[in-house]
Amino acid sequence: MPLPVGFTKHPADLLRVGPEFSLAKQPTNASPGFSGKKADGAAALTARAPVLAELQEKLFAQSRFGGTKSVLLILQAMDTAGKGGIVGHVVGSVDPQGIKLTTFKAPTDKEKAHHFLWRIRPGAPEPGIFGVFDRSHYEDVLIHRVHEWADENELERRYTAINKFEEKLAAAGTTVVKVMLNISPAEQLERLTARLGDPTKYWKYSPTDLDERKFWPEYMDAYQRVFEKTSTENAPWYVVPADKKWYARLAVQEILIQAFEGLKLEWPVGDYDLDKERARLKDAVI
Amino acid sequence: MPLPVGFTKHPADLLRVGPEFSLAKQPTNASPGFSGKKADGAAALTARAPVLAELQEKLFAQSRFGGTKSVLLILQAMDTAGKGGIVGHVVGSVDPQGIKLTTFKAPTDKEKAHHFLWRIRPGAPEPGIFGVFDRSHYEDVLIHRVHEWADENELERRYTAINKFEEKLAAAGTTVVKVMLNISPAEQLERLTARLGDPTKYWKYSPTDLDERKFWPEYMDAYQRVFEKTSTENAPWYVVPADKKWYARLAVQEILIQAFEGLKLEWPVGDYDLDKERARLKDAVI
Repeated sequence: MPLPVGFTKHPADLLRVGPEFSLAKQPTNASPGFSGKKADGAAALTARAPVLAELQEKLFAQSRFGGTKSVLLILQAMDTAGKGGIVGHVVGSVDPQGIKLTTFKAPTDKEKAHHFLWRIRPGAPEPGIFGVFDRSHYEDVLIHRVHEWADENELERRYTAINKFEEKLAAAGTTVVKVMLNISPAEQLERLTARLGDPTKYWKYSPTDLDERKFWPEYMDAYQRVFEKTSTENAPWYVVPADKKWYARLAVQEILIQAFEGLKLEWPVGDYDLDKERARLKDAVI
Repeated sequence: MPLPVGFTKHPADLLRVGPEFSLAKQPTNASPGFSGKKADGAAALTARAPVLAELQEKLFAQSRFGGTKSVLLILQAMDTAGKGGIVGHVVGSVDPQGIKLTTFKAPTDKEKAHHFLWRIRPGAPEPGIFGVFDRSHYEDVLIHRVHEWADENELERRYTAINKFEEKLAAAGTTVVKVMLNISPAEQLERLTARLGDPTKYWKYSPTDLDERKFWPEYMDAYQRVFEKTSTENAPWYVVPADKKWYARLAVQEILIQAFEGLKLEWPVGDYDLDKERARLKDAVI
């Protein structure tokens, strides 16, 4: 597979979490593998959008003729890191028909009464669908670890349950791509301040953002543990530097394109007799 | 409200179904109210996409602070008329976060065992959401009338049930916009033939398309009846000439923009103390 234009190395290879991965050593304000600047990145994003859209259309088309494959993007990040921007600017280039987006907020009382994966399972994509989780079951080992709502034994059980859940998804034909958008606390502060300086962004601000921010080191520890416990061959994590929004979007787009290309998708032939249908069309009355 | 650029009359006014409406008299290969050609139409569609996107974002933002409004677009048409293109090129310009798309296929046995609106209700948009029905409960008074799966008495009951259902949606804060994409049989034949001439489009073809085509006059009668019975003040029908795809997309976009503008949406103020939060941000530790 040739490298995407502007890249000297594929971001999927550079950003995939491997053994010995250390979140603390990852840059947040960088653009690994990409040789251009912001304007180049924005142009590349636009240029590659139709590629992702066509891959998704092929996936969808295949599902109409028995194809069982699907893709699931799981997005996790600290507040303001840009999950919404990935949904809007990367996922948003794909036909809505092929997207199943699930946003996970704080669980309801009913959800809390069930196993933590109970509310997650219905979000899994059907064949042909590009599923997206905006937050996910990882909250149950992130915020729950930070605030000690779950003890070590329980956390261990959850990592195991998560790996088993994602293995089952993979076995059923779902390519799982997990992305953590990695911003610095300084960048977050700037973005929160920008939100309170722009009336069109007030609605995105919540006072709890600042409360959670105080636990930044604990969150980073929890993420590190997540990567160690749950970055598997079938469901790898990618940690994407996200201080530059344009880079994060471009990198996630390319990671997704690579995932879709790995499915070796072809346009399906129909389940009908092509010649016979062409003849029927010729005879059709206007 | 000023007219959108390129229009001499607003398409919503020109295409809304009123008393004495006759489907048989409607053009299919026309661009009512628009003074430009195809390239102008395509440019206008691109130019207006961010307007629709921002209106939807405002709707979504409001719902975060108690707003109860939503919008529902119902799409009906003969095969190949371009419902998919509306979803991809008009709805697709909106952030996926704000969209709830439901595609209604032939009902399952389970769905058939229930009232015809049973499978429809869960598709209604929540506050802040732009809901889209690709086909709808209108199939129950269209294909069912054409094939005589429902007799006149039953059809009457269904029109009444539909009006009541849509009235309730409106009363709950949902702006209902119903669009019929109106193509000619000749244009359909051309599009079906194009599908069988392009391997990237084989998957969109189904032999049943040609079977249903034989009932064209019966379908037009059924649509005429639908318009007479169910075009109400709160849930009007728009019949959009659709032989020119570019016009249909542009007209539906403007009809939607008008519907959103009718909601008089403003960016919400937060439910927090702005000055206090600004002060907290200033004191925040990096």
